[in-house]
Amino acid sequence: MIVRDAPRALDLIFAIRGSILPRIALRLIALMGFAALLVWLDRRADLLPETGGLGFTVFGIALSLFLGFRNNAAYDRWWEARKLWGGLLADMRSLAREAEVFVRDDALRLSLLRTARGFLHLHRANLRGLGGDELAQRHGGTLTDAPHPPDAALDAMAALVKQGALGGMIDSFGQRTLAERLRSMALKQAGCERIATTPLPYVYSLLIYRTTWLFCLLLPLALVGPAGWLTPVFVGIVGYVFFGLAEVTEELSHPFGQTPNGLPLDAICRAAEISLAPHLDEEAPAPLEPKDYFLS
Amino acid sequence: MIVRDAPRALDLIFAIRGSILPRIALRLIALMGFAALLVWLDRRADLLPETGGLGFTVFGIALSLFLGFRNNAAYDRWWEARKLWGGLLADMRSLAREAEVFVRDDALRLSLLRTARGFLHLHRANLRGLGGDELAQRHGGTLTDAPHPPDAALDAMAALVKQGALGGMIDSFGQRTLAERLRSMALKQAGCERIATTPLPYVYSLLIYRTTWLFCLLLPLALVGPAGWLTPVFVGIVGYVFFGLAEVTEELSHPFGQTPNGLPLDAICRAAEISLAPHLDEEAPAPLEPKDYFLS
Amino acid sequence: MIVRDAPRALDLIFAIRGSILPRIALRLIALMGFAALLVWLDRRADLLPETGGLGFTVFGIALSLFLGFRNNAAYDRWWEARKLWGGLLADMRSLAREAEVFVRDDALRLSLLRTARGFLHLHRANLRGLGGDELAQRHGGTLTDAPHPPDAALDAMAALVKQGALGGMIDSFGQRTLAERLRSMALKQAGCERIATTPLPYVYSLLIYRTTWLFCLLLPLALVGPAGWLTPVFVGIVGYVFFGLAEVTEELSHPFGQTPNGLPLDAICRAAEISLAPHLDEEAPAPLEPKDYFLS
Amino acid sequence: MIVRDAPRALDLIFAIRGSILPRIALRLIALMGFAALLVWLDRRADLLPETGGLGFTVFGIALSLFLGFRNNAAYDRWWEARKLWGGLLADMRSLAREAEVFVRDDALRLSLLRTARGFLHLHRANLRGLGGDELAQRHGGTLTDAPHPPDAALDAMAALVKQGALGGMIDSFGQRTLAERLRSMALKQAGCERIATTPLPYVYSLLIYRTTWLFCLLLPLALVGPAGWLTPVFVGIVGYVFFGLAEVTEELSHPFGQTPNGLPLDAICRAAEISLAPHLDEEAPAPLEPKDYFLS
Amino acid sequence: MIVRDAPRALDLIFAIRGSILPRIALRLIALMGFAALLVWLDRRADLLPETGGLGFTVFGIALSLFLGFRNNAAYDRWWEARKLWGGLLADMRSLAREAEVFVRDDALRLSLLRTARGFLHLHRANLRGLGGDELAQRHGGTLTDAPHPPDAALDAMAALVKQGALGGMIDSFGQRTLAERLRSMALKQAGCERIATTPLPYVYSLLIYRTTWLFCLLLPLALVGPAGWLTPVFVGIVGYVFFGLAEVTEELSHPFGQTPNGLPLDAICRAAEISLAPHLDEEAPAPLEPKDYFLS
Repeated sequence: MIVRDAPRALDLIFAIRGSILPRIALRLIALMGFAALLVWLDRRADLLPETGGLGFTVFGIALSLFLGFRNNAAYDRWWEARKLWGGLLADMRSLAREAEVFVRDDALRLSLLRTARGFLHLHRANLRGLGGDELAQRHGGTLTDAPHPPDAALDAMAALVKQGALGGMIDSFGQRTLAERLRSMALKQAGCERIATTPLPYVYSLLIYRTTWLFCLLLPLALVGPAGWLTPVFVGIVGYVFFGLAEVTEELSHPFGQTPNGLPLDAICRAAEISLAPHLDEEAPAPLEPKDYFLS
Repeated sequence: MIVRDAPRALDLIFAIRGSILPRIALRLIALMGFAALLVWLDRRADLLPETGGLGFTVFGIALSLFLGFRNNAAYDRWWEARKLWGGLLADMRSLAREAEVFVRDDALRLSLLRTARGFLHLHRANLRGLGGDELAQRHGGTLTDAPHPPDAALDAMAALVKQGALGGMIDSFGQRTLAERLRSMALKQAGCERIATTPLPYVYSLLIYRTTWLFCLLLPLALVGPAGWLTPVFVGIVGYVFFGLAEVTEELSHPFGQTPNGLPLDAICRAAEISLAPHLDEEAPAPLEPKDYFLS
Repeated sequence: MIVRDAPRALDLIFAIRGSILPRIALRLIALMGFAALLVWLDRRADLLPETGGLGFTVFGIALSLFLGFRNNAAYDRWWEARKLWGGLLADMRSLAREAEVFVRDDALRLSLLRTARGFLHLHRANLRGLGGDELAQRHGGTLTDAPHPPDAALDAMAALVKQGALGGMIDSFGQRTLAERLRSMALKQAGCERIATTPLPYVYSLLIYRTTWLFCLLLPLALVGPAGWLTPVFVGIVGYVFFGLAEVTEELSHPFGQTPNGLPLDAICRAAEISLAPHLDEEAPAPLEPKDYFLS
Repeated sequence: MIVRDAPRALDLIFAIRGSILPRIALRLIALMGFAALLVWLDRRADLLPETGGLGFTVFGIALSLFLGFRNNAAYDRWWEARKLWGGLLADMRSLAREAEVFVRDDALRLSLLRTARGFLHLHRANLRGLGGDELAQRHGGTLTDAPHPPDAALDAMAALVKQGALGGMIDSFGQRTLAERLRSMALKQAGCERIATTPLPYVYSLLIYRTTWLFCLLLPLALVGPAGWLTPVFVGIVGYVFFGLAEVTEELSHPFGQTPNGLPLDAICRAAEISLAPHLDEEAPAPLEPKDYFLS
Repeated sequence: MIVRDAPRALDLIFAIRGSILPRIALRLIALMGFAALLVWLDRRADLLPETGGLGFTVFGIALSLFLGFRNNAAYDRWWEARKLWGGLLADMRSLAREAEVFVRDDALRLSLLRTARGFLHLHRANLRGLGGDELAQRHGGTLTDAPHPPDAALDAMAALVKQGALGGMIDSFGQRTLAERLRSMALKQAGCERIATTPLPYVYSLLIYRTTWLFCLLLPLALVGPAGWLTPVFVGIVGYVFFGLAEVTEELSHPFGQTPNGLPLDAICRAAEISLAPHLDEEAPAPLEPKDYFLS
């Protein structure tokens, strides 16, 4: 995730980090070149048909609304993913507190919390498709090899609760409270999995990219008359807005990716470690800082 | 569900799988032919009245907003359905864990989990209207013949809990916890049923298809003057956007259908089986893979 | 509720059942006649001032947005009402299961479930303002005469739970579980009442109908110049879209009405009866089928 | 709240009750007079510059979207407030039922319910800023003088629960159930307070009123050319739509006010009294009826 | 937060407090000067190309929709933050009541409530990044030095609950109830942290500011022909709407800032103190009043 203040005057012109421009620059140049070619043809041979603007107004509005919908849907996915991870952070902290209250055995309590920390890293590695993530292996141990590692970590926590219940170290109220906590974590984990495995319908992507290309390629026909040599400029700007939004949307709709707009899962895991540290009698690590405005 | 990456340059031109184009191609060809006919008539006999663009701008915007609304509503249904199934997956996993903690009899526990697995397949078959689904019959057994099979499966689970309670294998806390789990599953099952049995109001479909046809058929009147022989092209594009969106919307609003945009219920059921396997002392099956980009 | 598949070619032209057209036909004919009169006057005496389209574009967009808002709000009411009834259905099923687990007396259990079934019918009759509904009277008995029948039914259920608690037939966990179930039903019942007694603000209706009329009556002023004798056609189409949407919106915002777009409360009550039947040792009735595409 | 059916033909022309027109009539007359003056000046001296419509189209769309946003936000506040009060009504009914089940002392139970009724009236008076509300004083008694009366009422209810717990009249399950009920009421009360004390950001009001005035005052510049003496009519209509919506929005965003669009808190309190009556062994009062279409 | 009534006639012209105008005045003057320069150049040398309005209509609509999206997202953040703090206020009150019911030791109870009050101030100081906040230090004591002060305060509360449980001053039901309360507070605290640490994606800011500047700088090209010397006025107004909205959006998306549109956290903390006072046997402080319309 890019962490920067609101852009200032100079950023507006020069900011590259966090900008979508580099990703779409090639397309824009191609579009503008094509538009320039059309203007040149028109000036030279008057070959182009002059189409009025009506079709473009309706087309442009429909496209804007459609891009707007997709943008909303992508942002909602991103923000829901962030909410789920914020909820997991709160769950980790609550688990630590509830374990203090309800688990009457320190070894068991520490074991539970360590497995929970392992769960978080395994969940992160699973969402990001990181095979041999170092932190996941360090905290997850043998669970890394399970068919579904985060699921196995929650299973291991349930087994610890059962062991505590059988050994009289957790009473019935504690069992119920901890079972609720596990359920809440499982719900959020499944929510993240849902977002990760269910992309926005592919048909939208196809429809949007196809119509955006059509719009930008045909636009010169309507502009060449009134705007002349400014046509490539306008086509470039319209392409910047539409392709820019489409690309942002693409990135935001995959919130667990390690892209500039992906969620800072590493930093959230670190925040959980900081909160768990006093309960594990460990020293709290420092919070993760952004590098070159980027928080991983 | 179609599982593909963001479309690349060549996909934009050639992708058929996952595209809505084949479904609306006939209509588009008819529309473009009709538009070409009008242009020819106009060129030949100047019979067509020239209507300004005003009516079309307002009409087009109203239609766009309306299609946008329907698209939102359909996508919300689709996404809510996906959330409900994600929640069911989480419920299955939590049930397995809670059974470990609260059920003090292995035979009963296995019986409960197997019935839960049966419930999931029966629910899937019920939503998709699959009479003799093989997996539902294998896991659901005699429950398949009940008037409402998934409901009967949940009844059977409640009966198992009662039996465990009477036999002293589940204490009061466990009864309450498992009763909550069943309630949560019943709520999600009823939510899916709600979406399956309550389509988007039919009046919207009628209003949308009628106005889309009217718009596309009348559009040449406004375009023939300024756009001439490009009229069929514009009509084709506008028809592609509007009919394409209407069709996508139609598909998404039936999220349990076995269409290219239907939810991958088979894959979710498989994921649940994978998670249940260690609790049932079975070997986990492999996750379902998409075939020709399609995950059923 | 109208239950039909997506409209096919012929439906688009001829479908009446489920269409909003009959409801607004008179208005549309009046509008088109008025527009034709204006064109005739204009052709004959050139009395009409020619107004450009600018005012209409802005006016039309504002009106579209406003209608869109109202449509959203109405659809949300309709869908929320459907969710509440879906939740009640799930509550009925969960109640039946929880009663199996927690009520250790069959007569009391049957009494509880029968009162619950009575509650559902009383609630339905109350929402629809049906004085002497036959099913409500059969299942509700004397509760029909209470000042607030569904409320009285829930009171009766609470009294049964209390009786079971005093008689030792329901333990403390069961009391809490059943009290939660009653609360959940009361919450949904109050939600339905909220929707039924709080219409969309009247001021919106007034604003929308007034501006729609103004727009449609003034529109010929802008169209008569460019569109000539096609003016009535355009006015008719614009009127169809705007009035059609306004009427649909009006119907959907009263989801409990017995209109073509009202919710199928009878069918949902029947579904609840089917699910309760095995718990009441009764034979399950057949599901309600739509008549002439209409499910009541 | 205005309670009327959908407006009929005559209402559209003559309805004043519930209309926003009287509130904005002065402004509209001023606007139309100003527009007429400009037309007269233009006809007489041709002093006005002719500005094309482009600026107005973009400006008008931006303003429409902005008004639409504010309308959405205001309606959401209104509807959320209605939901909170509907939830409080359900809470009162559930409290009465739970008290029947869990409180084993009638005097204490009656005391609890009466304080709850007092809470509702104190809450209403507090939200509406009514100093000496008669009903609040009758049912709230000395609690009226507390720094925060509804809060004090909930404190008094908690004290009653504690007293019952110490006296053995409420067991642990009952304490937990009633504590949850109090928490649920406190949450809704705080929700209402939030809406009452946190208006929509003032900056929106300023931005909206300023831009609406600017738009309406400048609009004649674009209309005077094409529309001539119809200019004041169009300006009046556009002003009606924009100012009307702004005013409705203003009213709806203060849902607890005693305006035509304020929520009918008196009627909801009465409904709660009707539901509590049988539990208090009192006779149920009659429901509140609208006076001149207005339900207070 | 600015607390003012709906703006009146004079406010519209003169209100500065709460207006966004001072923040964007420089930009608007620059824009208008630039536009005036272009008009002067055009009049003098006819150097400017005349571009039709088509590009601007589509561009303007796309920009409006995009600004509208960002405004929605920012307002949602602001309102969610307000909801979280309203929920924390309700939690504080419920905690005080639940402590009365479930904690059978007054010293422990007072200790718990005082730590809760400290938590609220530490949470506020943490969100606002206030190092040496006086109230946080007075009520938070040594917790101020913890790596994560509000987290440490909740840990301290959990330790008090554990101490009460071990000492027999809180029974199992009380432990569960208070643990739920702590979890609810932790969830809201993590929600606020989420909003504070996860700004709106930076790429949106960049895209919006860049396109807004482009639009305003190019707009004169389309206006100079039809609008002449009124061009700077229109450019100024369009700039006012777009930049104004962008700035408001920027402020609202940081709801915990001490800006004119930041949330009144001080006042909410004070409201919590007022509600806690009777439970702490202290005198309730006066509510915080706005100064110069500003509530901090």
